[in-house]
Amino acid sequence: MTSSASAISSALSGDELAVLRDRALRDYDELVRRGLSLDLTRGKPSPAQLDLSAELLTLPVKGHHAADGTDTRNYGGVQGLAEIREIFSGPLQVPAAQLVAGGNSSLTFMHDSVVHALLSPLPGAARRWADEPRIAFLCPVPGYDRHFALCERFGIELISVPMTAEGPDMDVVERLVAEDAQIKGIWCVPKYSNPDGVCYSDETVRRLAAMPTAAPDFRIFWDNAYAVHHLTDTPVEIADVLALCAENGNPDRPFVFGSTSKITFAGAGVSFFGSSPANVAWFLGHLGKSTIGPDKINQLRHVEFLRDEAGVLEHMRRHRELLRPKFDAVEAILSKELGGTGLASWSTPAGGYFVSLDVLEGCAREVGRRAAEAGIALTPAGATHPYGKDPRDSNIRIAPSYPSLEELEQAITGLTVCVRLVATEKLLADAR
Amino acid sequence: MTSSASAISSALSGDELAVLRDRALRDYDELVRRGLSLDLTRGKPSPAQLDLSAELLTLPVKGHHAADGTDTRNYGGVQGLAEIREIFSGPLQVPAAQLVAGGNSSLTFMHDSVVHALLSPLPGAARRWADEPRIAFLCPVPGYDRHFALCERFGIELISVPMTAEGPDMDVVERLVAEDAQIKGIWCVPKYSNPDGVCYSDETVRRLAAMPTAAPDFRIFWDNAYAVHHLTDTPVEIADVLALCAENGNPDRPFVFGSTSKITFAGAGVSFFGSSPANVAWFLGHLGKSTIGPDKINQLRHVEFLRDEAGVLEHMRRHRELLRPKFDAVEAILSKELGGTGLASWSTPAGGYFVSLDVLEGCAREVGRRAAEAGIALTPAGATHPYGKDPRDSNIRIAPSYPSLEELEQAITGLTVCVRLVATEKLLADAR
Repeated sequence: MTSSASAISSALSGDELAVLRDRALRDYDELVRRGLSLDLTRGKPSPAQLDLSAELLTLPVKGHHAADGTDTRNYGGVQGLAEIREIFSGPLQVPAAQLVAGGNSSLTFMHDSVVHALLSPLPGAARRWADEPRIAFLCPVPGYDRHFALCERFGIELISVPMTAEGPDMDVVERLVAEDAQIKGIWCVPKYSNPDGVCYSDETVRRLAAMPTAAPDFRIFWDNAYAVHHLTDTPVEIADVLALCAENGNPDRPFVFGSTSKITFAGAGVSFFGSSPANVAWFLGHLGKSTIGPDKINQLRHVEFLRDEAGVLEHMRRHRELLRPKFDAVEAILSKELGGTGLASWSTPAGGYFVSLDVLEGCAREVGRRAAEAGIALTPAGATHPYGKDPRDSNIRIAPSYPSLEELEQAITGLTVCVRLVATEKLLADAR
Repeated sequence: MTSSASAISSALSGDELAVLRDRALRDYDELVRRGLSLDLTRGKPSPAQLDLSAELLTLPVKGHHAADGTDTRNYGGVQGLAEIREIFSGPLQVPAAQLVAGGNSSLTFMHDSVVHALLSPLPGAARRWADEPRIAFLCPVPGYDRHFALCERFGIELISVPMTAEGPDMDVVERLVAEDAQIKGIWCVPKYSNPDGVCYSDETVRRLAAMPTAAPDFRIFWDNAYAVHHLTDTPVEIADVLALCAENGNPDRPFVFGSTSKITFAGAGVSFFGSSPANVAWFLGHLGKSTIGPDKINQLRHVEFLRDEAGVLEHMRRHRELLRPKFDAVEAILSKELGGTGLASWSTPAGGYFVSLDVLEGCAREVGRRAAEAGIALTPAGATHPYGKDPRDSNIRIAPSYPSLEELEQAITGLTVCVRLVATEKLLADAR
């Protein structure tokens, strides 16, 4: 966070606040008159980013057989092609033999992992989760709304855990999992987290791997969605959760997920599940009942296009060239318009897809309403928290990737107008 | 069935049987000496059939946008592209608006339908299936092993129902579903059934649609896998199960499934789910928690390649040109080697992927063992029945599609040797 939303109300007189509010109101009226239609809601790659993978549309050209002779056009091969698993073994920190390559959505693998645990006992479990009186997951907040929605759909209780600059607050996590055997999982986006951009420290990963849990079937849902999605010259490396869990006697604890959705085509990529040999056998056993195999042609297409891990990293540098100016623009506008005002704080991520903006407590929903009236669509306030409820009503997730740079600048500038207006109105109301 | 496995033991003397057995034994020894390695196990398209869709590997060439402007490369569109749903609306007898187009496996849609019913109440259900004391499905036998395996994996009880030439024995089905509220579903492959090649009569479909069921949430799992997979000049038309269910006041009863797996690429096609508006809303609501959308590029690829329903039918004529000689060869060899012997009966399907061979009771497993010893892999005897147990031990599923014509002829000829050997040995043992 680059600035802190301190109690500015004490620093400004009522008259000074009213002047700021009046200026914000004039800016807002002007903003509404412009009749914008801009969208900052979802972390979608832009058309220009998708164009980077245009070659995929004409692949494969080297034939339709995998290295082991598999005809990728036919049925079979539930674990996915060995060569695509090799390419992503390094970035995802999972041995290729323990990696499963699937269809176009890692969310499906996460969903299926929960489903299989609900309907069949996990390795180490006393019973399937559907027969437990209650199931709960820890959710570091702010976090990813689709993780939460997936659990809500199955009646899994969501328990918020505060995020720190090093990952989830491990004192809280360790205490909760030690005392409550119904806590069966934790959602983690360990690198460039959604939306905060936090990277888990080695110590956080070690504590997650080593902590005693009351549940014998506790799982870390390690959604490494932004493993290679760097925005700086110094790519962040995180600790190897699979190795650390094994070293600490908890080999079956982590489920690792990843995908090429934000590497190649968001809607037509390859997804990955990785874990211990026991978990992979459990997962494949169930997966094999629901499919005769993934789309291996698309996996072969990706092998030809990306070639190897170096090819992935080179490709991600081209994404960075498109994304970095957008993140820089967000930072520049937020600093210029809100810096030093105490009305907001925000993240400056070194990777990933989001900027997390915190406005004054109780203001996020109203900022969203004002922005929508001005034609700027924001992810609904609260979406970054379980049940869509941010108890402080202060967090707003900004997704800079999809709009053009010009649209983005208009949208962020407009957003800062809404933040100034809502914040000064709130402070004036509080002062009355 | 072209011949009946009557009680031949009464028609032949022990000496005559011994002569037949000795001839079979000599043929079998000769067969084993040839050291074959042939596979009749799975209903996989042959490489030549897959080559029919070679153009798909270079599509799309008309750009990556759908008719409504959707960028197929990006996230979204959980119901699938409208234009691919339009093409398959006719063949699957489901209005395009009530059709969902997904990934490469209709088995996944079947699996997910069961999962969602287990974990969330179906429209009309009193509770989710996971909270029922017992769940059972009717399985017309012989049937498809993957349907059975999917249910077994969830502890769903499988109740066999005999097949007739017009579909499942409806007297049995009606009685069972009327009296047992725990029977929640029935597996149906209504056209060119797997493995019998049976096409459900209009009266069978009408009775399925109209029958009273004790369960308010009973569902027909209508796996129309071979909707356009004709082997004759007179394509079979089956009754419209969706319309008949609606007419009979049971609009939410059928779940319709289909795919292009045996139309284009077995491993890289498009799957479909179709049902009533209420069921589709229920299904999409859950599907939307597990994916942000299917691979729309692959759907667009299929739209360019198949064009329209007429394009699908024309394409299937080319498959028939490759498949028909194989089915003719199976029929010719079985007739020549086993016709009139009373040792076996078999189906002569007008479409689909299988020939169903019935040998003398108690002989199927031994035929499989003898064939394996001679290098001919058969689908394990019993696979066409729940729990892998054929109570008569007589049904063998033959999949003629994958081997070359020459390999197929060798394999079927070898199989008839095994049938003759095992049957005559059995009859001699019975006579002792």
